[in-house]
Amino acid sequence: MGRFLPAWLTGYRRDQLAGDLSAGLIVTVMLVPQSLAYAMLAGLPPQMGLYASVLPIIAYAAFGTSMTLAVGPVAVASLMTASALTPLALPGSPEYAALAMVLALLSGVMLVVFGLMRLGFLAHFLSHPVISGFISGAAVLIAIGQLRHVLGVRIEADGVVQTVVALITALPRTNPVTLAVGLGSVVLLVVARSRLPGWLVATGLARPRAELIARLAPMAVVVLATVVVGAFNLDQVAKVAVVGAVPAGLPQLPSASQLFPGWESLRELLIPALLISLVGFVESVSVAQSFALKRRQRINADRELLGLGAANAASALSGGFPVTGGLARSVVNFSAGANTPFAGVVSACLMAVVLMLFTGWFRAMPHAVLAATILVAVTSLIDLKTLREAWAYDRGDALALAATALGVIVLGVEHGIVLGVMLSLAVIVWRGSRPHIAVVGRMPGTEHFRNVERHAVETVPGSLILRVDESLLFANAMQVRDRVDSLLASDPGIRRVLISCAGVNQIDTTGLEMLVALESDLQRQGISLSLAEVKGPVMDRLAATGFGRTMAGRVYLSLHDAMKAN
Amino acid sequence: MGRFLPAWLTGYRRDQLAGDLSAGLIVTVMLVPQSLAYAMLAGLPPQMGLYASVLPIIAYAAFGTSMTLAVGPVAVASLMTASALTPLALPGSPEYAALAMVLALLSGVMLVVFGLMRLGFLAHFLSHPVISGFISGAAVLIAIGQLRHVLGVRIEADGVVQTVVALITALPRTNPVTLAVGLGSVVLLVVARSRLPGWLVATGLARPRAELIARLAPMAVVVLATVVVGAFNLDQVAKVAVVGAVPAGLPQLPSASQLFPGWESLRELLIPALLISLVGFVESVSVAQSFALKRRQRINADRELLGLGAANAASALSGGFPVTGGLARSVVNFSAGANTPFAGVVSACLMAVVLMLFTGWFRAMPHAVLAATILVAVTSLIDLKTLREAWAYDRGDALALAATALGVIVLGVEHGIVLGVMLSLAVIVWRGSRPHIAVVGRMPGTEHFRNVERHAVETVPGSLILRVDESLLFANAMQVRDRVDSLLASDPGIRRVLISCAGVNQIDTTGLEMLVALESDLQRQGISLSLAEVKGPVMDRLAATGFGRTMAGRVYLSLHDAMKAN
Repeated sequence: MGRFLPAWLTGYRRDQLAGDLSAGLIVTVMLVPQSLAYAMLAGLPPQMGLYASVLPIIAYAAFGTSMTLAVGPVAVASLMTASALTPLALPGSPEYAALAMVLALLSGVMLVVFGLMRLGFLAHFLSHPVISGFISGAAVLIAIGQLRHVLGVRIEADGVVQTVVALITALPRTNPVTLAVGLGSVVLLVVARSRLPGWLVATGLARPRAELIARLAPMAVVVLATVVVGAFNLDQVAKVAVVGAVPAGLPQLPSASQLFPGWESLRELLIPALLISLVGFVESVSVAQSFALKRRQRINADRELLGLGAANAASALSGGFPVTGGLARSVVNFSAGANTPFAGVVSACLMAVVLMLFTGWFRAMPHAVLAATILVAVTSLIDLKTLREAWAYDRGDALALAATALGVIVLGVEHGIVLGVMLSLAVIVWRGSRPHIAVVGRMPGTEHFRNVERHAVETVPGSLILRVDESLLFANAMQVRDRVDSLLASDPGIRRVLISCAGVNQIDTTGLEMLVALESDLQRQGISLSLAEVKGPVMDRLAATGFGRTMAGRVYLSLHDAMKAN
Repeated sequence: MGRFLPAWLTGYRRDQLAGDLSAGLIVTVMLVPQSLAYAMLAGLPPQMGLYASVLPIIAYAAFGTSMTLAVGPVAVASLMTASALTPLALPGSPEYAALAMVLALLSGVMLVVFGLMRLGFLAHFLSHPVISGFISGAAVLIAIGQLRHVLGVRIEADGVVQTVVALITALPRTNPVTLAVGLGSVVLLVVARSRLPGWLVATGLARPRAELIARLAPMAVVVLATVVVGAFNLDQVAKVAVVGAVPAGLPQLPSASQLFPGWESLRELLIPALLISLVGFVESVSVAQSFALKRRQRINADRELLGLGAANAASALSGGFPVTGGLARSVVNFSAGANTPFAGVVSACLMAVVLMLFTGWFRAMPHAVLAATILVAVTSLIDLKTLREAWAYDRGDALALAATALGVIVLGVEHGIVLGVMLSLAVIVWRGSRPHIAVVGRMPGTEHFRNVERHAVETVPGSLILRVDESLLFANAMQVRDRVDSLLASDPGIRRVLISCAGVNQIDTTGLEMLVALESDLQRQGISLSLAEVKGPVMDRLAATGFGRTMAGRVYLSLHDAMKAN
């Protein structure tokens, strides 16, 4: 029996309970407005946000490996959901809502399959700069998309430029009361984020507790705005857009026809589902990993795929939309003392209670305050620090970051992430295609050889000693050959070429062909070729080839040995 | 004045003339049937093949750098031309012919622009196995496509499976006389290729001369078949398909309206033109390079782009279609003694004479014999040797080769080459993502450190010495970290971690972040981190970072120094 239960449950200790209970309660306070806001961002009815915050959390608790990751609706996945569904159905329509469930189901199935295939390592195929650029670009898109709710105007626009133009055109139609609610909320949220912790610390509160309380401010602002709108009937009197009636009760299992929208729509959703899965997984794993490191726990990427897959499938089957692990919510969970995923189970139960008893409280909740919470939340995702650091350390990474961010803003999230993946890979290949090749000599009095241009080293006339600082692959094989040829051309007295392979981690078929041709061309000119410091795994494979046999006796453990043997 | 002329011309020596004249003559004998056959393969009227063999050769002679590359219509580029144009116009129609010129012009302009941008290094972004797979796949496609001419049936079919099905369905409609001509030609050509050199050597001829004569056999077979068909009026009597009337005279400059087919068609041709340019360039450069190496000459890849670009532009402006350097023809050119591109100029002039005086001779030339020459020529392009060698040395390369070949056959040439490029890059990233990490110890009595699993080495208790055999990039940063963590977990007594960076050729932003986190996590556990053998270019960039400052005094020239300093 025990092997089917998660380890945290079978090994649960009583002393973990207090932390889990308080974290579960506090996360719920944060989760209610976030669920409503991200459902709005995804173009879905508010109850779907709440549905996505019940079963998915329990499913993740059953299969995931992070003790502190808080799963549920998040900003970027909600934006991607909206961007995937808008071409297929009218936001707000029942078809649109059904497609959101299908998207979650597809994404869940894909993640589970990837998990069973142990493809967790795929998370590492997106570089951090590209992820950072993607998130920043998505944050800008989300912020621009929320401005309409703060202004209280309705606009219909695709694309970021069209949206900005439509917003400017719509400015004269701004609803002043909505704007007051929206701007007021933004100001309160910004103050709560930037000043409140300091004030609380000044009253004698400990810093961690002060920061935790400040993170719950959005709930207070949302309550305040809802009370004001409800008390003065501003939705009627001043046409302030509000959440309105939210059906009470737990979600129902969707019908089979809702989950099968026809092959054509299914095909259209495949790529978006794949991208949402990929982005959600990469984000979740990096959040989960950073918290695991703080507590010396370990994350299993393959199990994380299963956990997130189960969460998405559960979301689809309980009327929700794509979910993943959220950074802000996980920070709160961690700081509030969550010890195990039982904190999530507590949240899920409290959300179920909210759904059954308190949905009436959301009736007068203005869209403007939800938009304000999104706006303030996503501005913290815009990550200029990584851009600055990458620019200082590695221009290629910085350009990939900037191009991905711009790509997301201009081309949209889907094309943006594809561009980012391509750039990540292109940067790797580009780097490998420009090998650093040093002519080396012996450091006097040692057995070590170093670059003649950097150190005062001893060289031997008639011998050319090279160190190739790159694997020999098709992308650089010709450059290495060209460099050897031009060094030989510059000194006709060379009778021996010795290559240090300390930096050669791999030799592919094209690299091997280059070495074979180099050896035979050198031999024809009466020049001998030898190798040194060939790594074990590289030598194992070379040994089985004709080249390996040709070179027998000319491969040395070190450059020092090779020079002694001369 | 001299600086505008190619070097081979200003430095022309009288002793080079005899070789160039004979090579020019012999290549022409080979070029006439090939030009007609490849025009047929591309779905174009026969004279366009001849047009593509006059001006392009002269344009290449003016700008290229190879002394022996023979430019003109080739099998793979002709197949790609047919595949690009068939969706846009009816093969054989004037629109189709005009689009072929546009394709050549686009390809020419692209190649020239790439040459001016010095993008010749791009040739190295296709691995040899992938090129080999592409050529083999294209050869199979071409061979299947020619069977209809040998059978003498008309079929309309897209895709390889449909073509094979249509061929089988059409078998009962086979024209027996055409089949006899076709099969007879195939038999004669195969015998000429496999046996003729041996027979000629047996009569006392030198081997190189015998092989050269055997390579001219296709012309004799074509003449024989033409004479037989013409003498017995088989085109009338037995409905054997023939080349028919070929307009006499030199090509005329196409009109501007022919070269501008409208924006829509132009847009459709962009990707095919890019792929033809890329494939043609890579093929040409590798052929040119292999001959240049034999004579200690050098090829300049950027100048080759200009030469091939000029050849394609010249082809477009003289009524031809995309051209590139051909392997078989260059072999003949080289063996027949070509010393400079003047051999090509001789060929071009002879082709012009053929166009002006002898086009009537092609009237009774049967399609079946041209198809037979193509069939026999392309079977030699199917390269199983590279597949076998790659399989023995490197499974990843072998799979990329096989996947590219299958991709070309099943998905078509364009998707096949795109698949090949993606696979090339994926293989590089895949390799880099699985770093070899060795725990090392000191070889007794030396200053060198080697893998503890391969050598009897000395280790120091409390010290973990690692050698990471890969650059630290986003694709492997987490694996390296995981490995360090699990090694530490297996020996709680470790107080010092020392990493040899001899194999670390680059550290990207993600790799740097991993090192920063590793250092601070180790420090918190009271474990010191030091580095050794960091390469100059890597150290230069690290030194400017916060991590470089943190590590000051803990970066050693060699593992030996680092251990002494302990």
